Amino acid sequence: MIRLQPIARNCRLCIPQAAVLYRASPVSYAITARIFSTSSSPQRKDGASSTYGRKASGRNLPEASSVAKESENAQNETSLNDGGEDVYPPTPIKGAREYFDKAGIPGMDLQWNPRGIFGKNYRGKSTKSSAATLRTFCHCELCRNKANGQRTFTESAIDPNIRIASVEALPEGLRINFTSEEKRLDKEGTHTSDWPWHRLLAAVKYHVFRGNPPSETRIHLRTKVSYWDAAMLEKRIASIDYSRFKEFDGKWDVITQLCHLGIVIVKNVPLKEESVSAVAERIGPVRETFYGRTFDVKAKPNPDNVAYTAESLGLHQDLLYLHSPPKIQILHCMENTCEGGLSLFSDGERAATALLATLGADHPLVKALMERKVPYQYYAGGRNYYQARRVLEYSAGQLQKVYWSPPFVGDSTRRDMDFTPEWIRAARVFEDMINAEDAVFKFRLEPGDCVLFDNMRVMHGRTAFDSGTGSRWLRGAYISNEDFLSVASMIPRSVLRRSADQDSTDAPIRKGIALPKSSIEDLHKAVQRHGFDVVNN
Amino acid sequence: MIRLQPIARNCRLCIPQAAVLYRASPVSYAITARIFSTSSSPQRKDGASSTYGRKASGRNLPEASSVAKESENAQNETSLNDGGEDVYPPTPIKGAREYFDKAGIPGMDLQWNPRGIFGKNYRGKSTKSSAATLRTFCHCELCRNKANGQRTFTESAIDPNIRIASVEALPEGLRINFTSEEKRLDKEGTHTSDWPWHRLLAAVKYHVFRGNPPSETRIHLRTKVSYWDAAMLEKRIASIDYSRFKEFDGKWDVITQLCHLGIVIVKNVPLKEESVSAVAERIGPVRETFYGRTFDVKAKPNPDNVAYTAESLGLHQDLLYLHSPPKIQILHCMENTCEGGLSLFSDGERAATALLATLGADHPLVKALMERKVPYQYYAGGRNYYQARRVLEYSAGQLQKVYWSPPFVGDSTRRDMDFTPEWIRAARVFEDMINAEDAVFKFRLEPGDCVLFDNMRVMHGRTAFDSGTGSRWLRGAYISNEDFLSVASMIPRSVLRRSADQDSTDAPIRKGIALPKSSIEDLHKAVQRHGFDVVNN
Repeated sequence: MIRLQPIARNCRLCIPQAAVLYRASPVSYAITARIFSTSSSPQRKDGASSTYGRKASGRNLPEASSVAKESENAQNETSLNDGGEDVYPPTPIKGAREYFDKAGIPGMDLQWNPRGIFGKNYRGKSTKSSAATLRTFCHCELCRNKANGQRTFTESAIDPNIRIASVEALPEGLRINFTSEEKRLDKEGTHTSDWPWHRLLAAVKYHVFRGNPPSETRIHLRTKVSYWDAAMLEKRIASIDYSRFKEFDGKWDVITQLCHLGIVIVKNVPLKEESVSAVAERIGPVRETFYGRTFDVKAKPNPDNVAYTAESLGLHQDLLYLHSPPKIQILHCMENTCEGGLSLFSDGERAATALLATLGADHPLVKALMERKVPYQYYAGGRNYYQARRVLEYSAGQLQKVYWSPPFVGDSTRRDMDFTPEWIRAARVFEDMINAEDAVFKFRLEPGDCVLFDNMRVMHGRTAFDSGTGSRWLRGAYISNEDFLSVASMIPRSVLRRSADQDSTDAPIRKGIALPKSSIEDLHKAVQRHGFDVVNN
Repeated sequence: MIRLQPIARNCRLCIPQAAVLYRASPVSYAITARIFSTSSSPQRKDGASSTYGRKASGRNLPEASSVAKESENAQNETSLNDGGEDVYPPTPIKGAREYFDKAGIPGMDLQWNPRGIFGKNYRGKSTKSSAATLRTFCHCELCRNKANGQRTFTESAIDPNIRIASVEALPEGLRINFTSEEKRLDKEGTHTSDWPWHRLLAAVKYHVFRGNPPSETRIHLRTKVSYWDAAMLEKRIASIDYSRFKEFDGKWDVITQLCHLGIVIVKNVPLKEESVSAVAERIGPVRETFYGRTFDVKAKPNPDNVAYTAESLGLHQDLLYLHSPPKIQILHCMENTCEGGLSLFSDGERAATALLATLGADHPLVKALMERKVPYQYYAGGRNYYQARRVLEYSAGQLQKVYWSPPFVGDSTRRDMDFTPEWIRAARVFEDMINAEDAVFKFRLEPGDCVLFDNMRVMHGRTAFDSGTGSRWLRGAYISNEDFLSVASMIPRSVLRRSADQDSTDAPIRKGIALPKSSIEDLHKAVQRHGFDVVNN
């Protein structure tokens, strides 16, 4: 398993080295920890423990049981009071400070009382991880299946009134002894949980312990994003040989390029029918659709999709009538001897970003594209799919997605989908921008070429071909959004470093995002052509 | 293609018969329609047309071009005025009234002016379908590919200032002649669109023309939903023979049962490895996951999932860490000679609905389950999936979904996921309810049995088995939510009628939804066991 990034930005404790270090040092010492630092509580002195492992759970001192009783008595008070003021003033955990000082986080301190562990977040505010939470996320062998990391108990098995009986600071982390454990989890009625310092810090600061949830924004901050026009893509598009793609680095390069430019070519893919799914499976599970697990793009009699004709195909995205349209599309060229049939690609987010960056979200043109919904529908052959989507999906002050797929527009007259003159003019501006001469990357796929692209960003199409002059056969497959993000969130840092310097020439418009100059020129032309003002009046 | 239901409730015009009738009557007559009923406009008289088809578009009168010019002059006024007051008073379309009278909608009337077609919605409010919208949704041979129903143009190709030049009422519908057509769509610079009366009425009333978007609520209104306990399911669960499942009716029965009870058994499925995907494909495309297109549930060395052991498996739902967890799970029993290894099923929505119906959404127990999120995570083998879900997903005054999958709870300490004592007690109530003796349907899958169930509603599990006493091998596959709903929205009415009378014994708690009595008893027991009051205080 590859750990890729700190759990939090700037958190040097979360980096893999720390975890390795932690596992590698078995020497431990203990710091005397007082239970219930207020007068009424029993005191406890615990000697050094020579092993650092789950086995220790049986070693709880007899006092623990009296703590359990005390805790039981406090039940009502706890239910009322939990999350509010803690009745026991917290005690500093001295080993923590030493560890954080060494780890370059001076001044960081942790405290504890029976209710939980206390710390400070990045803003200096006090935070707490409750005993129940710490117990729930125990990673010991009893609580997690070692082979697959799965929890062996339900969180409801935790005693609602569980308390921390004592803590022991070890060089690698904190041993937490819990009290009032339910019999169904542990025969002893107690439990011991070992927390590496970096994990404990993460817990107190309220961030995720293992990995980060896969988020496109976070992935893009790592890979950077460059929007492109034809000239720029011509120069930059990566062609990766199939033999290299089959290696570790090659695979990650392909994934990185899909995040960075949204398109990449794998060359010399064997001319076998199963190749396209082999390429897909190297990245993620195939997203099967009602067109099949893979599909053949060639002229067919009675086609159920315009793609399966010899006609030209305007720029579009695939399957927008699905709730989750496929993220990655893979097209493997098996034959291409026809006249015509060039592949077309255009960066939809380049156009959308130029519109937003230049005109702003309040411009009537932009507003029309952000408000009116377009109905996408597939209603044939016993299948019924429907989604209404805006051209510019905008929220939280930011462009989220671009949706443009005219051949798949279905039927609807819902009032918010009415095609007003203003909407049509706005759509024409967008259409002109993605179809502009300098926007469209045009090339001929040769047999063995496999193009992979981000269907949620890049519009694709083709010129018409003459099926009388030869044959044209592409094989296609999809990868779903979540399956792709799942993998893309794991790109190793070494791969990122290699591709980091490529974009220094572009002017960034937002952190990590660059826009080619031509976009603004295309925008001005298109906006004026359709009778809008560039300045919002 | 099967048309299943009226486009709108009570809309007798939308039923398939109307469409068939319409197509079957080629005789037509025309009603003289005046263009621009105000003084300045040119008048037009058009004779009867003997054919009713797209070919008529060339027959537009020369006056149309002057209308185009007029419309061009009105451009600025239109942009400012569109959607507001119409400058031309609308003219009644006489043929419409006659048709609606005959079709049993007396008093319904349509009117038109160059801006669009006007009518009234169910509340008697005036509605309008604009010329641009009507033009966009033209279904003629030029505008839609006949073989696949796909649009042949982008909606931006419509002239923003398009107007209706004239209308002709035919027995089957309205012929609409548009003016100021863009050259890129039609060489004539005009377009003619034939609208069946029922489609036109739908357009004016703002509902979807073809089919309805697949919605689970609408599907459940048709199939009805019965929540079950063990005794009730024992009596009611449908066992459908594989030979019948392969026929038209059998397939739809299986789909209906999946909506109604959330579980169904197909018997005598051939003991072949490919059977499970054959069963899935008969319903929808397979939802492939990183476990594979299909998966084998048997005890394995080094399992990457607790399912692949011989251990007991508590009630849970699969893959809740996916953004769209699979809707339907299919388990095909290949071998089952071990001691133990009984299959367990429990209706999660029965428990959730009982909680909500008895305690109400404001009860602290229910609130805890509706507010706290549980982090689901898979973080291993280079994969990273994460979703935070509430036990009761409640919105719009209604239970949306139930999520319960303790073995797959991942790591997080986000504040809204803190495991407070109250949350734990609430979770215990839910856990007790789904695990109650009378809630859990227990049975032994025999080789050849294939159980299909709704993973978003029904929790499943198994008792431990002794792999020394024989072999246990299930093959599994999934169908995604949207692929299932796509098909389930197409259940023929004949199938629904056959299974309609089954539920008359249950007391419905909401329209079309029934709850067995035991649920309330289980609820009272569980609520009191964990120290909550049944009445919200």
